[in-house]
Amino acid sequence: MSANQKKWVYLFSEVDEAQRRTGSWDGVRGLLGGKGANLADMVRLGVPVPPGYVVTTEACNAYLGAGAQFPGGMWDEVLAAQEKLEALTGKRFGDPRRPLLVSCRSGAKFSMPGMMDTVLNIGLNDEVAQGMCELTGDRRFVYDAYRRLVQMFGTVVLGLPDEPFEAVLKRYRQSRGVENDADLQADDLAALTGEFKEIVRTHAGREMPADPREQLRLATEAVFKSWNGKRAVDYRNAAGIAHDLGTAVSIVTMVFGNMGQSSGTGVATTRNVSTGEPELEGDYLVNAQGEDVVAGTRQTERIAALGQFMPEIFAEFKKLAAQLEGHYRDTQDIEFTIEHGKLWLLQTRDAKRTARAAVRIAGDLADEGLISREEAVLRVSPSHIEFFLHPQCDPEAKREAAERGDKLGSGLNVSPGAAVGQLTFDADAAEHLTKVERKQVILARPETKPDDVHGILAAQGVLTSYGGRTSHAALVARQFGKPAVVGASGLDIDPIERTLSVGQGSGRRVFKEGDWVSIDGSTGEVFAGQLRTWIPDVNDPYLLKLLGWADSLRRLGVWANADYPRDAQRARSYGAEGIGLCRTEHMFFEPERLALMQAMILARTDEERSGPLAALLPFQRSDFEGLFRAMNGLPVTIRLIDPPLHEFLPNHDALLREVTEMETRNKWNDGETAAQAAELSEKQRLLSLVKLMREANPMLGLRGVRLGIFRPALVRMQVRAIFEAACACVKDGVVVKPKIMIPLVAHSNELQIERRELEDEANKVMAALGIQVPYQFGTMIEIPRAALTADQIADCAEFFSFGTNDLTQTTFGISRDDAEAGFLMDYLQRGILLKNPFATIDEAGVGKLMEIAVALGRKTRPDLEIGICGEHGGDPDTIDFCHRIGLDYVSCSPYRVPVARLAAAHAALKDKRRQAAAASKAK
Amino acid sequence: MSANQKKWVYLFSEVDEAQRRTGSWDGVRGLLGGKGANLADMVRLGVPVPPGYVVTTEACNAYLGAGAQFPGGMWDEVLAAQEKLEALTGKRFGDPRRPLLVSCRSGAKFSMPGMMDTVLNIGLNDEVAQGMCELTGDRRFVYDAYRRLVQMFGTVVLGLPDEPFEAVLKRYRQSRGVENDADLQADDLAALTGEFKEIVRTHAGREMPADPREQLRLATEAVFKSWNGKRAVDYRNAAGIAHDLGTAVSIVTMVFGNMGQSSGTGVATTRNVSTGEPELEGDYLVNAQGEDVVAGTRQTERIAALGQFMPEIFAEFKKLAAQLEGHYRDTQDIEFTIEHGKLWLLQTRDAKRTARAAVRIAGDLADEGLISREEAVLRVSPSHIEFFLHPQCDPEAKREAAERGDKLGSGLNVSPGAAVGQLTFDADAAEHLTKVERKQVILARPETKPDDVHGILAAQGVLTSYGGRTSHAALVARQFGKPAVVGASGLDIDPIERTLSVGQGSGRRVFKEGDWVSIDGSTGEVFAGQLRTWIPDVNDPYLLKLLGWADSLRRLGVWANADYPRDAQRARSYGAEGIGLCRTEHMFFEPERLALMQAMILARTDEERSGPLAALLPFQRSDFEGLFRAMNGLPVTIRLIDPPLHEFLPNHDALLREVTEMETRNKWNDGETAAQAAELSEKQRLLSLVKLMREANPMLGLRGVRLGIFRPALVRMQVRAIFEAACACVKDGVVVKPKIMIPLVAHSNELQIERRELEDEANKVMAALGIQVPYQFGTMIEIPRAALTADQIADCAEFFSFGTNDLTQTTFGISRDDAEAGFLMDYLQRGILLKNPFATIDEAGVGKLMEIAVALGRKTRPDLEIGICGEHGGDPDTIDFCHRIGLDYVSCSPYRVPVARLAAAHAALKDKRRQAAAASKAK
Repeated sequence: MSANQKKWVYLFSEVDEAQRRTGSWDGVRGLLGGKGANLADMVRLGVPVPPGYVVTTEACNAYLGAGAQFPGGMWDEVLAAQEKLEALTGKRFGDPRRPLLVSCRSGAKFSMPGMMDTVLNIGLNDEVAQGMCELTGDRRFVYDAYRRLVQMFGTVVLGLPDEPFEAVLKRYRQSRGVENDADLQADDLAALTGEFKEIVRTHAGREMPADPREQLRLATEAVFKSWNGKRAVDYRNAAGIAHDLGTAVSIVTMVFGNMGQSSGTGVATTRNVSTGEPELEGDYLVNAQGEDVVAGTRQTERIAALGQFMPEIFAEFKKLAAQLEGHYRDTQDIEFTIEHGKLWLLQTRDAKRTARAAVRIAGDLADEGLISREEAVLRVSPSHIEFFLHPQCDPEAKREAAERGDKLGSGLNVSPGAAVGQLTFDADAAEHLTKVERKQVILARPETKPDDVHGILAAQGVLTSYGGRTSHAALVARQFGKPAVVGASGLDIDPIERTLSVGQGSGRRVFKEGDWVSIDGSTGEVFAGQLRTWIPDVNDPYLLKLLGWADSLRRLGVWANADYPRDAQRARSYGAEGIGLCRTEHMFFEPERLALMQAMILARTDEERSGPLAALLPFQRSDFEGLFRAMNGLPVTIRLIDPPLHEFLPNHDALLREVTEMETRNKWNDGETAAQAAELSEKQRLLSLVKLMREANPMLGLRGVRLGIFRPALVRMQVRAIFEAACACVKDGVVVKPKIMIPLVAHSNELQIERRELEDEANKVMAALGIQVPYQFGTMIEIPRAALTADQIADCAEFFSFGTNDLTQTTFGISRDDAEAGFLMDYLQRGILLKNPFATIDEAGVGKLMEIAVALGRKTRPDLEIGICGEHGGDPDTIDFCHRIGLDYVSCSPYRVPVARLAAAHAALKDKRRQAAAASKAK
Repeated sequence: MSANQKKWVYLFSEVDEAQRRTGSWDGVRGLLGGKGANLADMVRLGVPVPPGYVVTTEACNAYLGAGAQFPGGMWDEVLAAQEKLEALTGKRFGDPRRPLLVSCRSGAKFSMPGMMDTVLNIGLNDEVAQGMCELTGDRRFVYDAYRRLVQMFGTVVLGLPDEPFEAVLKRYRQSRGVENDADLQADDLAALTGEFKEIVRTHAGREMPADPREQLRLATEAVFKSWNGKRAVDYRNAAGIAHDLGTAVSIVTMVFGNMGQSSGTGVATTRNVSTGEPELEGDYLVNAQGEDVVAGTRQTERIAALGQFMPEIFAEFKKLAAQLEGHYRDTQDIEFTIEHGKLWLLQTRDAKRTARAAVRIAGDLADEGLISREEAVLRVSPSHIEFFLHPQCDPEAKREAAERGDKLGSGLNVSPGAAVGQLTFDADAAEHLTKVERKQVILARPETKPDDVHGILAAQGVLTSYGGRTSHAALVARQFGKPAVVGASGLDIDPIERTLSVGQGSGRRVFKEGDWVSIDGSTGEVFAGQLRTWIPDVNDPYLLKLLGWADSLRRLGVWANADYPRDAQRARSYGAEGIGLCRTEHMFFEPERLALMQAMILARTDEERSGPLAALLPFQRSDFEGLFRAMNGLPVTIRLIDPPLHEFLPNHDALLREVTEMETRNKWNDGETAAQAAELSEKQRLLSLVKLMREANPMLGLRGVRLGIFRPALVRMQVRAIFEAACACVKDGVVVKPKIMIPLVAHSNELQIERRELEDEANKVMAALGIQVPYQFGTMIEIPRAALTADQIADCAEFFSFGTNDLTQTTFGISRDDAEAGFLMDYLQRGILLKNPFATIDEAGVGKLMEIAVALGRKTRPDLEIGICGEHGGDPDTIDFCHRIGLDYVSCSPYRVPVARLAAAHAALKDKRRQAAAASKAK
């Protein structure tokens, strides 16, 4: 199609033609922009929308491509459309007796809020203003509209700065002794309009054009040009929106809600967006413009009151709201204006809502048959579920605090949840106050650095005055699940003076160390004082219903990591279908066991070791028994001891200090006693043993299966405990499904040796007790070599479980302990890594190894069960990946089980859609 | 073919028939065993071999498979063959007037020396013995042969223990007052024979069979059965020989070299196997049996003397020797016997030879046209080349020491090279004597344990009385290139008494701490005293010729790792074609630079850092200039700083000790001085900085490219030094080819940032100096993620170099520092790992990642240059692997360059053979 064959302008009523041409609704949105397409769609539905038309994105691109030249024929089409508008409205552009005013708005395919330009009230000039005054008898209204046109025209179209206009406004306000522009009178506004025109003349070196068509032409060009404005380009870069889409221009008849008592304006949502209750919610104002509702300068009325005041209008609105919700199949957020008793809808869009409302609305819409259950599940995001897992500020408390003036400001909501604590200003203090003085603190810093990590960990929450979503504080807080508000630029946080202050002059409030503050990391709000918080009910019936649907849709199993019976019980109550990881070593750290463990480690012969091991056995057995009973009927995966043995020994540095002190003291203090000498000698012996067991890189040292091979008696004791516990449970009718899991395998030979050793022990126990317990023997895949040789490893392993923490450490060559408080945060801030690979699987690297392992493992053993038990198992993106590569289950912390259930359903549904898309493409 | 159609017995002269049937020489060896096939082959060549025949391996397998039953027809075939032997020799089995004696020997397809059984002199009985006495007039000879038959029959065929026979012999020796059996007289031997028969009768409960055919039948069965003897099975398991091959039985007419002055026996090699000189070498004895030559009880004559003594025989032997060398295309080791002036050849085989001889012989054979240059190159093994790189014991000095009685014994030659040092008996002492007292020591232990590693490292060499080729001492010594002899069971090493003793009773010699000993790790010999050692000439002309041929045959380039100009010069003189790795950080450890480095690290601002960095620049520049000049015209790969910065700081533990001492002292010693307080405060500051930089797992911490990103000024300085040096060289007409190499890259973004940063600096330098230096920018591949995403990394890297040390550490999840002195050795000893993955690439795991990286990297950049610069680069097996996966070069330590040149040629030749085999298969 050659350029002059193109149609550059579509009336709202021509939406079907646009759809025929582009072939899809998505195409219409691309051609007319999101806003234009939506208005046209509403027209097609018969909804009363002020008449208008759209200049296409193609025209924008042609204009920009031709060096700011309208494409041939475009302007004629605009003028023709403008004439049709005149015919529809019975008004005329520039006609003082029946003036037509229009707005000229940008509108790209994807919403870019506030990034591009708008000009309202096009069509006003001195003559039209005069005519309108006569027609409306409301001179104030007319000149208010007129001065706005001149100001917008000056700044948006002619590119003048705001300041000269604002200076004039300020002067008028001061001379009249008023605070708001709204309190200026008609004469002032008329005079202002004149002064604004003078500003245009002097600053832009041209007259404010009086010809409405000239106004329209220049405004259209300004909107086109704003596509390439810096703000817009930056936004698209950040949001990943293509730069060649262009913006459309919607030109819409102006309607006015401030034309008397039969006029008004408002916004409403079709359901309650806080609670999800199915009732119309919103506010309106009589004789007002949209911005009055938003600004809050006048007390709005609840939307229900419109029923009394304008029953027919209210009835019509309710009908339209229901129609729109039905059409768009979601709760709508609708802007409307009533002009002289005529209802116009100016915009409708899917309503923003709280997590709780999202869950309820999705369920209700499905129950009402408006959407399918699949769609309901997809409409709820994992972060919505997370809401139910974090403490939240009580909304009522927040409202009260705001009323008291205790809302101090807000910043970016970078890590969800509420935190309440006493202010402190450095990391060491945060740690001291928490650990020693047992206080709850909020760490407030201008920004955080790697040195502050221990303080962030100690604090209830983090508050900074600088920094963005990827600032150090944000990353670390998210990483460790601490609520955080960053970049709260209204707050002055002074770590030297140790104060947090807000406001200026007499309104300034200063908070000191120890003062209570509350932050809401979900919204970014900051309050003075101790706000009430609450933990949402994870047994919310709407949540349970939705998760039930998710369960029916997912393929992936959701298991939990639990080391103790109480964790297992919680996990089961949250819907876990098994234990994917029980870390047996945690059990050894409890005080009475630690002494035995140390005795075992420090023993020099197998004989010396046997005593402590025998004493540890009953502890382990009772731990396992508790787990089996809690998980009756479900699988329990028990990982044998993993960490290096020196983790159970006294700290080397402390011991070295102690010994050195004693040695030095003895030198200065002649004649040490026999007791002192004995004590020193004992400490020295211990130190030399600890030294012997130290490793340069313990992460890569004697741990996991290596330990099992090196110290077989220890793992034999563990296996004995497992099978004695299992047999005891079986006797009581408990159904046990133990899975023995070997960590850190790199070579199939390691596993073979271990299996032979341990099955021997298991068989001994079962033979002695006369009970056969069905069990499985498997391995973690957490070393690259294990993934690369998974075919050999599967020869000996009946199941795999990806240990993605270690696998990420080894695949990246990164020690998490060192990096997460150090260069890794720097990498994330600088965009070297886009996501923390310890939170979300790095698909290109670690993920590739996982894929290799799955393929090789199943080549050897087609029915191989494969799961993941690293922390990634609770991360939605990772869960999607696990679904795609065909894992059988994910295992995560008990608290994240509900999130994982939903994410697993999402993964299955997205996969289904991809397959459907591929199938339809194949046709 | 059914069983009764099979031919079970082949005369030596029927070798062509065997070859027709089996289709190949390999088939003949399989059917007749190596020994039988060789004897038959010699017969085919017209070489005088005592007549004989072979019972096939198939007969053995049939016998064993049928539960010790000869297959049908076999025995008849043996008897028929025996008759043919009688016809050929004109003698008859059991005929006292012209007796035929035969030997009955095992012989499998692959040599299993000493593992199976042999019976000599079959055919003797009382009557035959009597006849032979009359025929030979040598009663002593006859009864010596007879008593040997009875003894061998008793032990081998009837399975009696040796002891009763030896007890009788001892009694006779004692009663005659002689030391050797050879000094017993005819009557004694006749009486002995009678007593031996009595032993058979009482111990075996049966008579020694007098019927020669019965003797032959039982001996044949015994040989068959010995195939499944424990020794043989163990040997096959160890050597990887299949258990279903079976052994053949060679039955050969006995000839005797001890039948007077016209008889004799000897062994000779067709070339000198010490030096490779092309002259017949060997020894013979007149009127003697083969064992007399070997036992050394009589002084042998040089083979050349045979020329005077029996000129025709010698001429015939020389002709046969040349014929056999020509036929087998290699130096032969020939056994011969002269019986009554008739020369018989009893065996020929490829001669064992020293490394030096191997090199010369291979070259000479090729020059003589007997073999191709390719074959000559293949005949020399990398370990032969290694000989030229290690110090060796002077053979003359060893001979002299042996004559002095200073050869103390021998063990396994587990790690090559000579070592001379003073005895010490524990690792701490070894370390102390070496480091503090500056002595050379040999560490002698019954066996070594992981705790001894520091002593092994300190010592010149290691000697143990226990342990095998995979014992801890052997593995560690080989690992670190220390000469070692292990399992020297004749030595009594007592670490408590701190003595090494040898011999019993009055002959006992005891060596104490500090006494000098010498060990030859290449042969396993141990000597008292300080033996002369020498380093073989790497410029040996035969070696140079052979390496020149290797160079023309290899595809892989051979580069060297060199950090200093002197190393680069040496590498070049050894044939290196480039520097594959210059580790720049080593340069920082020199004392004057270390202080600057520490100042740079401890600085708190970029400004404070700039001074030390500027001072380091000239050092680096001159280092690089030296390298470029040494490698004029060849590429020099410079890796920017890699290790964590704390490696350059004082040791944490020592500092902690120091600070604690000072603090404690101050407490006890009231009133510290201002100077003391200042010193303490400075140390405390330093300690806290060192603490801050400590990492839990430094291997996986802030190092490599991470450091470059974290501390850009440091790597900028390095790049400035490189380009300033390069420009200076270019000015002098030196051709420089710098390659900038970035370590530890895990993500392509890291490389992109670094490339932008560093190329900026390089361009600045080149612009300022007005010289353009062509250079390349590339990366190490030493992190699994880099290998897995090599396609992305190749976008930014112009070359790859595999850092297989780190890649092995991360792929296995093993810290080399910790593991090689610990569980890794245990893994090797227990066979969990068959090879040390830090010495030879683990093809299944690490190798798979390398293959992935090569494929992905070349997908992005088809001409990507790829090398390896880990220590594996000098390992022959790894070099073969690198050839197979298509690397461009290997880089190794300068000393290993000659080894690598040969190994690279081997790799190419093996590949060529594989391809030829595949091509002929495809036809």
